[in-house]
Amino acid sequence: MSEHEKRRPVGRVKEVTSLSNPLVKDIKALALKKFRDQNNAFMAEGLKLVIDALDLGWEIRTLIFAKAGRGNAAVEKVAARTVAAGGDVLEVSEKVLSSITRRDNPQMVVGVFTQRLVPLKDIRPARGDVWVALDRVRDPGNLGTVIRTVDAVGAKGVILVGDTTDPFSLETVRATMGSIFAVPVAKTSVEAFLAWRKGFPGLVAGTHLKGAVDYRSVDFSDKPVLLMMGNEQQGLPDDLAQNCDRLLRIPQAGRADSLNLAVATGVMLFEIRRGALSLEAPAP
Amino acid sequence: MSEHEKRRPVGRVKEVTSLSNPLVKDIKALALKKFRDQNNAFMAEGLKLVIDALDLGWEIRTLIFAKAGRGNAAVEKVAARTVAAGGDVLEVSEKVLSSITRRDNPQMVVGVFTQRLVPLKDIRPARGDVWVALDRVRDPGNLGTVIRTVDAVGAKGVILVGDTTDPFSLETVRATMGSIFAVPVAKTSVEAFLAWRKGFPGLVAGTHLKGAVDYRSVDFSDKPVLLMMGNEQQGLPDDLAQNCDRLLRIPQAGRADSLNLAVATGVMLFEIRRGALSLEAPAP
Ligand SMILES: [Co+2]
Ligand SMILES: [Co+2]
Repeated sequence: MSEHEKRRPVGRVKEVTSLSNPLVKDIKALALKKFRDQNNAFMAEGLKLVIDALDLGWEIRTLIFAKAGRGNAAVEKVAARTVAAGGDVLEVSEKVLSSITRRDNPQMVVGVFTQRLVPLKDIRPARGDVWVALDRVRDPGNLGTVIRTVDAVGAKGVILVGDTTDPFSLETVRATMGSIFAVPVAKTSVEAFLAWRKGFPGLVAGTHLKGAVDYRSVDFSDKPVLLMMGNEQQGLPDDLAQNCDRLLRIPQAGRADSLNLAVATGVMLFEIRRGALSLEAPAP
Repeated sequence: MSEHEKRRPVGRVKEVTSLSNPLVKDIKALALKKFRDQNNAFMAEGLKLVIDALDLGWEIRTLIFAKAGRGNAAVEKVAARTVAAGGDVLEVSEKVLSSITRRDNPQMVVGVFTQRLVPLKDIRPARGDVWVALDRVRDPGNLGTVIRTVDAVGAKGVILVGDTTDPFSLETVRATMGSIFAVPVAKTSVEAFLAWRKGFPGLVAGTHLKGAVDYRSVDFSDKPVLLMMGNEQQGLPDDLAQNCDRLLRIPQAGRADSLNLAVATGVMLFEIRRGALSLEAPAP
């Protein structure tokens, strides 16, 4: 359990091999929401992800890379960018990296970033914009997958309503496959959401098992659209359903009485964006 | 750690409170693929699921229920059906149930069932039938969600090609939300699959990032359709892609270069079944 730090000529690179190193302990603590919130920070894995995040202007606090990354030009470049941004760089053993990411075969690079949410009041949808509001979403994988899908269809962002799973958990960030850095996310109470919704200048559509309208029968073009999705257990509660302009239903066959939340959201989003997406001219 | 068994007047109900009870150990071992394969068995959680499974003719080997279920009419009825089918019934402590299901708040009822796969040679698609072939799917949640979606759209079943995650793992079964009992699943090698595919009497469509054809531009009606999906890491490999009649692409915007596998499969399936699904007349 020898522990040592030494300055590397390249910059401020600390070398860490001990699981009990206090820097490592602080990063590992980010697995818990309490510490993520206290530090307003979160972790993301993967060299490409970290580069994308920096390119998109996210604030990096710490770059952690495996010994195997030493000498890798891309890793050295990201390390230099981290130092230039005032962040720390840690070179760690694979054991430490596994421990931080809770994985047997960890990625070579992990970044610790400052959390960033968009304030609800700053969301002012324009024509063609699509936003997704998720009511009390519970499953980190579902949330991450919805964020990823929002990115894929070119929708504008996600509004988390009520008590939801944390968008900055390791599992959610993983499921976004990097889209956490590209897709604006807002968090709000039901009350604040309903107040904001009153000013929404377009169509507010809820997906509802009791909806009488086929989701394919609505014209979503030429206006902002807010898609409201209920959570995994209950679907949209009454207070939210009553504030939709339309309650839409996805027709189903067979004995399953509901789709997975991320699949249902994906099917809705591809329908809403049906006219905007094409192979010839990808929508902005 | 007191352990005791006693016969209940109602039937062959064994009462178990010890984690070291051999029956409990055997059931817990089903968390591992090795033991599931050895015993040709798997676990499913939830009273409604177990009832559905029995109604669909699945063979139950053991019913486990929490003490809280004693006297519950539905639980007693399922217990009687299990005994009538020659299965065992265990009444266990919540601690034991948590341990079996690896959950803090377990369902009240767990069933151990005999695995059942459909032989590939028995799949003879008719007009309108839709099958999904998944190439080396890795994520249990994705596989379970695809099985659930296949059920929801009224497709016929899932063919697992190559080395895939186990359809009978606890995580996959959970994600199917009961559809594991309703959706036929086949497992096969690439070679056997390609041989079978030669006789497929309809359209074989692969989803491919390099596909030149918009997935919405194809007529899927009036014929059997086989949808081939690549895995989470690589998309369709060449040997499978070359055996598709059409390589289709889902147009995307934004910086995400791919959709989650279960979402992409869902979007494809709702397109393929677009004409068959409606709110007025749910398809058979
Ligand atoms: Co050293
Ligand atoms: Co007792």
